[in-house]
Amino acid sequence: MALIVQKYGGTSMGSVERIEHVARKVMMARERGHQIVVVVSAMSGETDRLIKLAKSISARPVPRELDQMIATGEQVTISLLAMALEKVGVPARSYTGSQVAIRTDKAYNKARIQKIDTERLIADCKAGIVPVVAGFQGVDEDGNVTTLGRGGSDTTGVALAAALKADECQIYTDVDGVYTTDPRVEPKARRLDRITFEEMLELASLGSKVLQIRSVEFAGKYKVPLRVLSTFVEGPGTLITLEEHKMEEPLISGIAFSRDEAQLTVAGVPDRPGIAAAILGPVGEANIEVDMIVQNVGADGTTDFTFTVSRGEYERAVEVSRKVADELGAKGVRTALDICKVSLVGVGMRSHAGIAAKMFKTLASESINIRMISTSEIKISVVVEDKYLELAVRSLHKAFNLESAT
Amino acid sequence: MALIVQKYGGTSMGSVERIEHVARKVMMARERGHQIVVVVSAMSGETDRLIKLAKSISARPVPRELDQMIATGEQVTISLLAMALEKVGVPARSYTGSQVAIRTDKAYNKARIQKIDTERLIADCKAGIVPVVAGFQGVDEDGNVTTLGRGGSDTTGVALAAALKADECQIYTDVDGVYTTDPRVEPKARRLDRITFEEMLELASLGSKVLQIRSVEFAGKYKVPLRVLSTFVEGPGTLITLEEHKMEEPLISGIAFSRDEAQLTVAGVPDRPGIAAAILGPVGEANIEVDMIVQNVGADGTTDFTFTVSRGEYERAVEVSRKVADELGAKGVRTALDICKVSLVGVGMRSHAGIAAKMFKTLASESINIRMISTSEIKISVVVEDKYLELAVRSLHKAFNLESAT
Repeated sequence: MALIVQKYGGTSMGSVERIEHVARKVMMARERGHQIVVVVSAMSGETDRLIKLAKSISARPVPRELDQMIATGEQVTISLLAMALEKVGVPARSYTGSQVAIRTDKAYNKARIQKIDTERLIADCKAGIVPVVAGFQGVDEDGNVTTLGRGGSDTTGVALAAALKADECQIYTDVDGVYTTDPRVEPKARRLDRITFEEMLELASLGSKVLQIRSVEFAGKYKVPLRVLSTFVEGPGTLITLEEHKMEEPLISGIAFSRDEAQLTVAGVPDRPGIAAAILGPVGEANIEVDMIVQNVGADGTTDFTFTVSRGEYERAVEVSRKVADELGAKGVRTALDICKVSLVGVGMRSHAGIAAKMFKTLASESINIRMISTSEIKISVVVEDKYLELAVRSLHKAFNLESAT
Repeated sequence: MALIVQKYGGTSMGSVERIEHVARKVMMARERGHQIVVVVSAMSGETDRLIKLAKSISARPVPRELDQMIATGEQVTISLLAMALEKVGVPARSYTGSQVAIRTDKAYNKARIQKIDTERLIADCKAGIVPVVAGFQGVDEDGNVTTLGRGGSDTTGVALAAALKADECQIYTDVDGVYTTDPRVEPKARRLDRITFEEMLELASLGSKVLQIRSVEFAGKYKVPLRVLSTFVEGPGTLITLEEHKMEEPLISGIAFSRDEAQLTVAGVPDRPGIAAAILGPVGEANIEVDMIVQNVGADGTTDFTFTVSRGEYERAVEVSRKVADELGAKGVRTALDICKVSLVGVGMRSHAGIAAKMFKTLASESINIRMISTSEIKISVVVEDKYLELAVRSLHKAFNLESAT
């Protein structure tokens, strides 16, 4: 008998029929002899509806009041699921973040979990009752309702699994696992049986939006085995584990990509210490998040400094960069919007040379020009023209033999 | 400077514009130097929407879970109103029933308030903050959310006013006070400046659905001055007070009526002790609420036993009565659905003889046949054919001179 935390997202809670489907899934897991604790999100669209309502009162709603209000989304779904469970004969009890209690700091709209009181949940499990816990929300030391920010229900699931020392945290979503790349771009993309936390972090941050990054970090930190599965299709999903659990290390786990990229180059800046800080300081102060950063060494005592930002921040980034370029006496700012980023991810590349060379050669054989390169221990990213995105992903998928199980 | 509890109902909270209107009303009351504590209902229709959602999962939703869910209706409006108050420059803070805390028993769906912790609210008032409290809901000793039943927000308002020793509890609704009768039936109906708790109870229970009966009882018990006002029209409303506060006692305060009546007569039952219990016992056991009861003394050792029920319970009442009639050897059961009840209410009638006679004479002069009479200290009710309802109300309104202020 295992203790399993199951987390169901907004799509899985999207209608009465789906909630009843989730109730049957919980019932079956229980019939297999497991103790189940459930974490749920609000019905899909509900949180947005509530935020819109708040914004129709005030463009900048008081953060405490916004949290108080949007926490109702999960309060509805926990109750509905508990009712649906009782209806199929499974004793159940719903808990808000306050009722558990899931203690957080006071950072409304983006609170961090500090401590979870598990007594009630453990007592319920022992009594054969399934606790249904509201994701995304907590309570501060003064009893104020807080929320964890977008995707926070995954974090609730993982944090609960860690606090309960659960055997597994299962994240049910509308995809049946983590894929080698997006199947909409490469139909031969393959579901991975296993992936490491580190790889998952790289894939998640690069646009494979299966799991919230914070929840993966959290699971890695507390060594909670995490499994991504589909609510709607039966299957083993993808298990996200610590590296040492893997028996055979594939070279590459997957290919991530992002179209939400814009490139800025501050050209002809004096090549001297502190220049990166001189450029990126003002950009950071303007609250613009920088993704890739590359600095080329120039021949004439100047250098080109290139970085990428998300497209939504492009115009502000150009404005700040032009100002900085003037101050530094640079030649100017070159920009590009028609670009994308493609990344190879795999812990296996740590111990294998030649991955980067093979990647560049594959792209060259398709006449895809690389505009920018950035590497980390388990990832190689390139920026290319965005019209090449599909071609780049598919040729790399084939070159690294991702369609067949390793 | 007075401490005033203002309660706004679902219609007053029905849209963003209306919530902003309420915020301005609170702001103005505050500018007149008062300390304000606000109690609000859910947006009109929201509680019904949530109950419907629950019933689509289960015909008989688990009571605890239903309360957990429907309590979200007020959790949304307290947050929205607090945001709207902050926007017009009034510091405000929302509180759920749990957060206050409003302690209740464990009777889900119809909980009773046991105790209210007022520290936070008093601290807020002292700090110039307007607490916005969720009506209709509370929390039991184990932290479970409870609700007080339909119209419970009025009770929350009155209970808070009692606990805070407020100078007045103002119930804002979509009517501008309590009228001598329903203006839709008698356009000359007049708003009463004052009315006693007892009269209000009789009027409320007889169909003038301005206030929830429990809240009036509560206000009377704790001597909280209660005022009914309109959210949308300026005016003094109607003050509901203890009898001794009244200077001039009008004979009659108002005329209540109800179309939701059905009459059953168990005819020719043996006229012996215990017969009322023998008939009403089975009716009560079937959970049918009986309103008026009349027993006529018969000449032949038998009697006719007549009572009224609401129309929704008519068919079940007939069924039970026929069974009882058979067992008692009665002659049979006569029924009538085309009836209504009209009641004169007034504490003044206590010390004045002749009210009943004047009432019957007025009805007789309009050729309205009285089918049943029932009297209490401050009320005289008659059952007449329902086609005479308007005529009866208008002729009594005129006969007792209710259109002109006394």
